[in-house]
Amino acid sequence: MIAARKLTAEALGSVLLAATVVGSGIMAERLSGGNAAIALLANTGATVAVLAALMALLGPISGAHFNPAVSAVMALQRRMPYSEASAYALVQFVGCCAGAWLAHAMFGLPLLQIGTHVRAGPAQWLGEFVATSGLLLVVLGHERPRDAPWMVAAWIGAAYWFTSSTSFANPAITVARSLTNSFSGIRPVDVPGFVGAQLLGALAALTLSRPLFAARAAARAGGGEDFRATTSK
Amino acid sequence: MIAARKLTAEALGSVLLAATVVGSGIMAERLSGGNAAIALLANTGATVAVLAALMALLGPISGAHFNPAVSAVMALQRRMPYSEASAYALVQFVGCCAGAWLAHAMFGLPLLQIGTHVRAGPAQWLGEFVATSGLLLVVLGHERPRDAPWMVAAWIGAAYWFTSSTSFANPAITVARSLTNSFSGIRPVDVPGFVGAQLLGALAALTLSRPLFAARAAARAGGGEDFRATTSK
Amino acid sequence: MIAARKLTAEALGSVLLAATVVGSGIMAERLSGGNAAIALLANTGATVAVLAALMALLGPISGAHFNPAVSAVMALQRRMPYSEASAYALVQFVGCCAGAWLAHAMFGLPLLQIGTHVRAGPAQWLGEFVATSGLLLVVLGHERPRDAPWMVAAWIGAAYWFTSSTSFANPAITVARSLTNSFSGIRPVDVPGFVGAQLLGALAALTLSRPLFAARAAARAGGGEDFRATTSK
Amino acid sequence: MIAARKLTAEALGSVLLAATVVGSGIMAERLSGGNAAIALLANTGATVAVLAALMALLGPISGAHFNPAVSAVMALQRRMPYSEASAYALVQFVGCCAGAWLAHAMFGLPLLQIGTHVRAGPAQWLGEFVATSGLLLVVLGHERPRDAPWMVAAWIGAAYWFTSSTSFANPAITVARSLTNSFSGIRPVDVPGFVGAQLLGALAALTLSRPLFAARAAARAGGGEDFRATTSK
Repeated sequence: MIAARKLTAEALGSVLLAATVVGSGIMAERLSGGNAAIALLANTGATVAVLAALMALLGPISGAHFNPAVSAVMALQRRMPYSEASAYALVQFVGCCAGAWLAHAMFGLPLLQIGTHVRAGPAQWLGEFVATSGLLLVVLGHERPRDAPWMVAAWIGAAYWFTSSTSFANPAITVARSLTNSFSGIRPVDVPGFVGAQLLGALAALTLSRPLFAARAAARAGGGEDFRATTSK
Repeated sequence: MIAARKLTAEALGSVLLAATVVGSGIMAERLSGGNAAIALLANTGATVAVLAALMALLGPISGAHFNPAVSAVMALQRRMPYSEASAYALVQFVGCCAGAWLAHAMFGLPLLQIGTHVRAGPAQWLGEFVATSGLLLVVLGHERPRDAPWMVAAWIGAAYWFTSSTSFANPAITVARSLTNSFSGIRPVDVPGFVGAQLLGALAALTLSRPLFAARAAARAGGGEDFRATTSK
Repeated sequence: MIAARKLTAEALGSVLLAATVVGSGIMAERLSGGNAAIALLANTGATVAVLAALMALLGPISGAHFNPAVSAVMALQRRMPYSEASAYALVQFVGCCAGAWLAHAMFGLPLLQIGTHVRAGPAQWLGEFVATSGLLLVVLGHERPRDAPWMVAAWIGAAYWFTSSTSFANPAITVARSLTNSFSGIRPVDVPGFVGAQLLGALAALTLSRPLFAARAAARAGGGEDFRATTSK
Repeated sequence: MIAARKLTAEALGSVLLAATVVGSGIMAERLSGGNAAIALLANTGATVAVLAALMALLGPISGAHFNPAVSAVMALQRRMPYSEASAYALVQFVGCCAGAWLAHAMFGLPLLQIGTHVRAGPAQWLGEFVATSGLLLVVLGHERPRDAPWMVAAWIGAAYWFTSSTSFANPAITVARSLTNSFSGIRPVDVPGFVGAQLLGALAALTLSRPLFAARAAARAGGGEDFRATTSK
């Protein structure tokens, strides 16, 4: 049986992460007087800060994935059972959608919205591929668990700016963003392209990580069936 | 008897925290040429930096609460006596108000002011509820005391942006902000709503933290009456 | 005899710190299109980053004071001999002035300039008093030497914004700033007021630190004449 | 034989570092509405974040140089063989150029471009000299390997602002920037001046580091031929 504590932690983290992504986008757009760079700076800062704090807080409980692409790769690496990864993913999708609605409630907006921000085309898909593969390399390759929060946050913060897609890098967040018609939104029709690129990026990272981080994986494997090692993100 | 050193540390931290919140708001409003997003970015950066530095400096002495909601929850968790929590709260309220006046003095403004910034309504109250419950989860759930400063600061920095209320998350700071008619101010009539939402958020965090961080609390409890463990914020 | 390595480290750090304060002010003013808040944000970020890096790099050699107020307090606390503190101060003043000239050279400006920025009056003096006393409390009171770089940098970063004087908090930097007619400059006639307030703030911190950080000082004193402990800033 | 893992790590890091420098410059220029300070703030933040994350991730494998000036100094210090430093440099140049093209692809721009941004003259060369010598001092002088990522990132972030050249500080990045006609670009004809100043700065740092960090180098030398110690950047 999958521990309720783990799923609670994944749900809580997913709600708060999505509420931050969407909510800080709404606040930034309201205050920035039309300067999109200032709005994205604020959106980046809030996302990065909450991601690091939530990973440090909930990582010891659930591994702090908050991201189906991460849980899927963990299952493919046999660091967690497929059944658990599936339960994680379900909780992550529901939690992120609830987070978008929580953001709307905090800003007095209609809860149910549909994204209209066009995000499509090979250039942005390449951005999602690069952003997600880098994220998974950090997740799979970092040496000390205590460094994972700042390393993941730093990667995502950079990727918000150096990819044309502003680095969604997370299928659950992508779906949640299709439920808001604000700064961070995306059209539902554009979701499959983003998610597909994210999954390809995750697989590329998994492939590259084997030779690159072989020594570390071997050291970990020495400990046997290390399902609790998902803490390492 | 409550150690004078502890109360001095709480007083000093409360003064400097409130002076930073109010003072950086005044500076930011003066310099930002009307762009509220730039002003809030500066206000956020200063608050986050001073909060982390003061927690690391004074945490080993008093626990570095600077926040009656935190002291109340610590007393409810039997991690400090009620008498001490009451003394902490008194010092925090007085210290934060003094901090607002110090900020006015540093900027050559009339010391005594009354806030006129309207901050009310269910949406903002929900924001305070979420911001304070997240703050208390970080306070109650972090694993290593040395991580508390950056985790609390990161949470508050994010919550400045993803809640519609800009995350006061502290009854003493809320009262102090009602004593300034500048960027960070609030109308006195709006204080009770904010403080009520904060206290509800703190209680929600306390309830959620029991099952979520049970293992950690048990480990701590093994050490007996751990009144000095208030260092953990 | 005072080790040449220590004085070299203080000189190098003072040059680079002052070059950053002055140089990033020039760059920020050139690029910010007249928005002083954006300029101060950039000036703050650069100062904070270089201060933390230089303290971590040179702290193990000289203690990384870069500040006559810090060296004076260290001597008053008998953590370094007066002769060494005097040599430190001389090197800090010369180094900071050279840093201002280096910044001018890097931006193709006349090396020799005189500040014309008016910074005077009781409100700004109070700001310098608060900024410097807080700085010295962090220097005297932090627990782990490895935390000093980020704690000092965080305090200074906050104080750039919450004091009306933008927190010079350093007599050598203050003199160096009187040698530049750019964003970070100050009129020579305003230097004595700032330096006086800084020294009073340092003495206030020294007085307050005795009861507040008594336990820590006692632990240190147990190690005998700990002149090398100046590493602790 | 030089381990393929090391060269793969250097290649990967060089690609992602250059893609971040160029890509975040494109994004920042598009969004900032002509305010160059906001654009440079975003460019700085993204560069600093990715540099720290990549150094922490790949440092244990290759030393995470991503910079021929660093590899050259490591070889001059006999901390890696010349043959390996040459292979590193080749991979760094190719990787950085590929990173610029990747950035163009992610933003739907023509892959092949030539920089037109004029960056020349003694003032900017002095900037590159100072930026690179400071970088190498941090690389050669830091005490704990785990601190290298944030110290290098902090130095580069400050140097983006306090030097007139915005601190390229890396011959491979300089060549890659000559292949983009965007915010971070440079004219090919200006590359030799920048690279020459960078190499002089690196040599100056090497000279200064010997007396300054002598004790640390001696401690390291005690361990014999420590080719794996290149991890220390």
